[in-house]
Amino acid sequence: MTRESRYDILFEPVKIGPVTAKNRFYQVPHCNGLGYRDPSAVARMRGIKGEGGWAVICTEQVEIHHTSEITPFIELRLWDDRDMPALTKMAEAIHEHDALAGIELAYNGMNGANFYTREVPLGPSHLPIATFTYDPLQARAMDHQDIRNLRRWHKNAAIRAKKCGFDIIYVYAAHGFSILQHFLSRQFNHRTDEYGGSLENRMRLLREITEDTKEAVGDTSAVAIRIAMDELIGTEGIHKAEVMEVIERMAEVPDLWDLTLSDWSNDSRTSRFTEEAAEEPFVIGVKKLTSKPIVGVGRFTSPDLMVRQIKSGILDLIGAARPSIADPFIPKKIEEGRIEDIRECIGCNICVSGDLTMSPSRCTQNPAMGEEWRKGWHPEYIRPKDSDSRILIVGAGPAGLEAARALGVRGYEVALAEATRELGGRVARESKLPGLSAWGRVRDYRAYQLQKMTNVEIFYDSALDAAQILEFGYDHVAIATGASWRRDGIAHAHLKPMPIAEGVEVLTPDDLMAGKRPMAREVTVFDDDHYYMGSVLAELLAKDNYKVTFVTASVEVSNWSRNTMEQHKIQARLIELGVEIITNQAVAAVAPGEITLRCSYTGRETSRAGGALVLVTARLPHDQLYLDLTARQSDWADAGLKSVKGIGDAWAPGTIAIAVYAGRRFAEELDTPDIGDALPFRREIAELLQG
Amino acid sequence: MTRESRYDILFEPVKIGPVTAKNRFYQVPHCNGLGYRDPSAVARMRGIKGEGGWAVICTEQVEIHHTSEITPFIELRLWDDRDMPALTKMAEAIHEHDALAGIELAYNGMNGANFYTREVPLGPSHLPIATFTYDPLQARAMDHQDIRNLRRWHKNAAIRAKKCGFDIIYVYAAHGFSILQHFLSRQFNHRTDEYGGSLENRMRLLREITEDTKEAVGDTSAVAIRIAMDELIGTEGIHKAEVMEVIERMAEVPDLWDLTLSDWSNDSRTSRFTEEAAEEPFVIGVKKLTSKPIVGVGRFTSPDLMVRQIKSGILDLIGAARPSIADPFIPKKIEEGRIEDIRECIGCNICVSGDLTMSPSRCTQNPAMGEEWRKGWHPEYIRPKDSDSRILIVGAGPAGLEAARALGVRGYEVALAEATRELGGRVARESKLPGLSAWGRVRDYRAYQLQKMTNVEIFYDSALDAAQILEFGYDHVAIATGASWRRDGIAHAHLKPMPIAEGVEVLTPDDLMAGKRPMAREVTVFDDDHYYMGSVLAELLAKDNYKVTFVTASVEVSNWSRNTMEQHKIQARLIELGVEIITNQAVAAVAPGEITLRCSYTGRETSRAGGALVLVTARLPHDQLYLDLTARQSDWADAGLKSVKGIGDAWAPGTIAIAVYAGRRFAEELDTPDIGDALPFRREIAELLQG
Repeated sequence: MTRESRYDILFEPVKIGPVTAKNRFYQVPHCNGLGYRDPSAVARMRGIKGEGGWAVICTEQVEIHHTSEITPFIELRLWDDRDMPALTKMAEAIHEHDALAGIELAYNGMNGANFYTREVPLGPSHLPIATFTYDPLQARAMDHQDIRNLRRWHKNAAIRAKKCGFDIIYVYAAHGFSILQHFLSRQFNHRTDEYGGSLENRMRLLREITEDTKEAVGDTSAVAIRIAMDELIGTEGIHKAEVMEVIERMAEVPDLWDLTLSDWSNDSRTSRFTEEAAEEPFVIGVKKLTSKPIVGVGRFTSPDLMVRQIKSGILDLIGAARPSIADPFIPKKIEEGRIEDIRECIGCNICVSGDLTMSPSRCTQNPAMGEEWRKGWHPEYIRPKDSDSRILIVGAGPAGLEAARALGVRGYEVALAEATRELGGRVARESKLPGLSAWGRVRDYRAYQLQKMTNVEIFYDSALDAAQILEFGYDHVAIATGASWRRDGIAHAHLKPMPIAEGVEVLTPDDLMAGKRPMAREVTVFDDDHYYMGSVLAELLAKDNYKVTFVTASVEVSNWSRNTMEQHKIQARLIELGVEIITNQAVAAVAPGEITLRCSYTGRETSRAGGALVLVTARLPHDQLYLDLTARQSDWADAGLKSVKGIGDAWAPGTIAIAVYAGRRFAEELDTPDIGDALPFRREIAELLQG
Repeated sequence: MTRESRYDILFEPVKIGPVTAKNRFYQVPHCNGLGYRDPSAVARMRGIKGEGGWAVICTEQVEIHHTSEITPFIELRLWDDRDMPALTKMAEAIHEHDALAGIELAYNGMNGANFYTREVPLGPSHLPIATFTYDPLQARAMDHQDIRNLRRWHKNAAIRAKKCGFDIIYVYAAHGFSILQHFLSRQFNHRTDEYGGSLENRMRLLREITEDTKEAVGDTSAVAIRIAMDELIGTEGIHKAEVMEVIERMAEVPDLWDLTLSDWSNDSRTSRFTEEAAEEPFVIGVKKLTSKPIVGVGRFTSPDLMVRQIKSGILDLIGAARPSIADPFIPKKIEEGRIEDIRECIGCNICVSGDLTMSPSRCTQNPAMGEEWRKGWHPEYIRPKDSDSRILIVGAGPAGLEAARALGVRGYEVALAEATRELGGRVARESKLPGLSAWGRVRDYRAYQLQKMTNVEIFYDSALDAAQILEFGYDHVAIATGASWRRDGIAHAHLKPMPIAEGVEVLTPDDLMAGKRPMAREVTVFDDDHYYMGSVLAELLAKDNYKVTFVTASVEVSNWSRNTMEQHKIQARLIELGVEIITNQAVAAVAPGEITLRCSYTGRETSRAGGALVLVTARLPHDQLYLDLTARQSDWADAGLKSVKGIGDAWAPGTIAIAVYAGRRFAEELDTPDIGDALPFRREIAELLQG
């Protein structure tokens, strides 16, 4: 197939200073939780995007000097020459497929505590550092020598980056992560010298560093400015009108403008809170200020929307971070006319949670993310089958669907048995909840792929038992039968069943997802899960006009959603919906009309009136079929059965990303030799120095 | 000097299975935030404790298998042979001074999310993993094959550990971090097979793994069990009576019993909440159950208390983690009769904050902690002076005292000018606040050391100005004049001055520490600092019978104190004291009798009656003297002045640990050649693999 002509515009080359992007697909800098700890894993992950057709592929932020580092976060470092081999390896991997390699040089200043190097953080003013963890130290207001130093450090880093082979070198002033943004900000910049006060003064450092960088490396490398268009906190903060003026004044200084929102939680909003192309209002109009190309993001997965961004003169380059993680082959698929094969980002921000937990970013849609080098997984390809084994997969939720798809690609004969009439399992159910519709893409992508395969057969209405499976005579069986939400209150606060008196109306998320609603108009949601489900159900019920009380033993609603940068937005939404929020309290016991709460700090119990109770607690894996089959292991040989594995929630309930990964792993590892106790992945470890 | 005979008992050798500790000083396993990322730094840190006289020195926890790892935390790994060189280096460093090397093998099970390896966590039961971060995944209940695997993995790790040279190999069942504790716990162990139910069943895995380990390595290595005596949650949890029975039943199985409290926050309580030897009630009586030696902890820094632990038959070995960090030379100092030279742990848990922020642990008392290998610093020694320069240090707070002390040790002629009649600066003031008296040790240690030096002169009542300093003719000047708490409300919530109407009674922490008290009986403490100060002042005022309201824009009181494991205890204490706590609200503005709050989520403002306002916000460095001197740089040559540096809070307000470190750094770097833009420390980085 070839691409449709209306997408030709996406494949036009774009000149960026001294270099040229071969098309308009631009992977903007994004973190990945691998960073300096796992450099070859980063290199391969970026290289695969080159294979997928991106014209520009950038690194995550790279610390340019040891006086500003952001431990505990694991990004890249370019502190001295010793960091160059790793960065060179990344640039080379990107170049393999003729992509341009971009590098985001970062000096975080008051955004880093320097917990690793113990240097005093620098900033425009004497202020507490502006991490989101209230670290107990302040930045030092830079004097003129500090500013000269910073300019030199940035220049040194740019020269090193060029030597490493990077084609686009960033001057970073975005996401609240850069000292250049802090200087620009009237909030943080209280200076009275020529670097503070007027806009021209506040942008002086940005201008100087951009000019320095141009001078140092601009002959062969493009110099980009990545800037925050708005902080969404009104005119006290960085806001569009002011940034437009910055751009106007420096319009032709850089070779490219990379436009973002600040802070990061605003730039990378989830599908629960924003649609595709949500940044358009903040970047529209910039193009008329400059002749330089403009890149911007918007969780773009729709080629037509991309075309519109170009045609309507908003952007020159289609920036993407998350969509390029979910599908590193978006450009190639559009080019080859395979639009329907695009594996669209669901906007869940599980990738972000990797970075925020200092662990390799995973992706709900792309289980190969982070495993490209470690395990040799590829987002698109998987090696052909190693045998003529026939595989039965029981359950068509995220794990089962991915296992069937990947085994299908391998060429195995696969039967996918689903107990209901619908594919998707929990994804089908959850995507009907408020704000989660994009999550259905996990099913949609896989359903479409399966539909194209002749070697995968789907059986609906097919709940199976052990006897039937043994009769069928498959070689390998994967049990992917999902999990149920517990009804007994067990999770974190209760490790044995919660005292629930008779007559109390108790519902679980499964009940609500099945359409059941409380009879009582007053509902208490006790969330001892702490990710999205409790808040989504509170939202559902509030919108159904229930009087909702949200109780959690945590300090806040959806505590783990901090890792997807949604927590603040979630709690704000519940408040706006009129949900009463009770934190630091567990539901200790419940009786008709009465709920007993227990304080997390003191253990003191108090009672309040209560109606129905929704328990969002732990889950129970549906592993009975697995257990039944393993109990009959003596019958396997006769039945021709060689292995039975539990995967996904049926094995151990987790996130959708974990389930998809389990499905993929089953497919990757089928018919592989037993490696015993050897590590099943590659890793890089610290090289011991002498002494 | 030699030791006093009453301490002889501390220097008796103790047989531990096949090995013998040369004395009773035992550095129990403790984390340090360096771990697998900085292995040589760990090795040197441990080695220095050997030099300081500890008979046994243990590693932090070491992950024995990739199916259980605790990313984001950075401990050690023994996943395969590739990890052995780093561990061997550590054992060798410990052996250099004839100490025994212990290794804490850990399989965390449901205490780890496996975010790095993506393996399904294992545990006794199907339960949500028990990290304290509510990670959204569950552990899989282990079947018999899993148990056989775990036993084999532990044995493999023990064999590797022995090959690395370790003398004491741990079976770890403590702190809530170990699967063996989860099996022991009736809360987590819901099994119905021979590993669940009765105590004998729940302890079966502990017994089996201990026996396996003995069998595998017990010929030359001792095998220790580290066990939680109590979780402090009543008889539902692990509690002393039950653990006594465990010990009784397995009394002679291991070669040593290492007794702890669980979780970690209970085992490592701060001086704000407990005294030295606080674990005594939980370990007393164990000795009569077993002939094997017993080690326990209690933040021991007092030799007489140590003697009592031995003589009264509570412990055989004096365990220490934090005291050994604050002073790695405790044993040597006791041995040499230099009791007064002991640098006592202040019990602040800044060390813990390192581990919890995945950064090298620092120590308030021992600024060399973490820099032993990186910068070549030593907790006791520092190289002699490189010149005959005379040094003036202005300010005798933590930075100034440490600078004077370390320069004094180097042999420089030092003048320490203090504006008041008291040494200690902020430490003198803060140690008078409720619960912080032990912090005075920062001053006490240094004051005593300085008193012994003839080359350091202290001048009291000596506020100096630039003109005076230029007159004095010192070669180098350090400005260590501290900081003041701001009175304008600027910190995180306010980046420009808070609207404070005339007539409002506003106090700062400095006011309260100077003895001033509010006139109004109702006081609102607005804490926008988020470490200890706000809560300590609320406690002070509540105990002075003020009606106290604590307001914070954070989700909780003293949010950063999570990193010292105090947050929960702090908030509980304020509740018990009757302090009204308002979270998620900033004080937006204040007028006489009225305080306006602003919701962190919605920005909505509400008003309430208010009396006096205590502002615990940012601080302003006292850097005027530095600025005055640098403004007169043209006069330096005539005055003989070569350099002026700001250090500690006067440069950038931070923690006491940061200030002490700055003082030490000034002393370490005086008269060193300029290294330009080179890295001022060593580091180990990931070794790139081919491909």
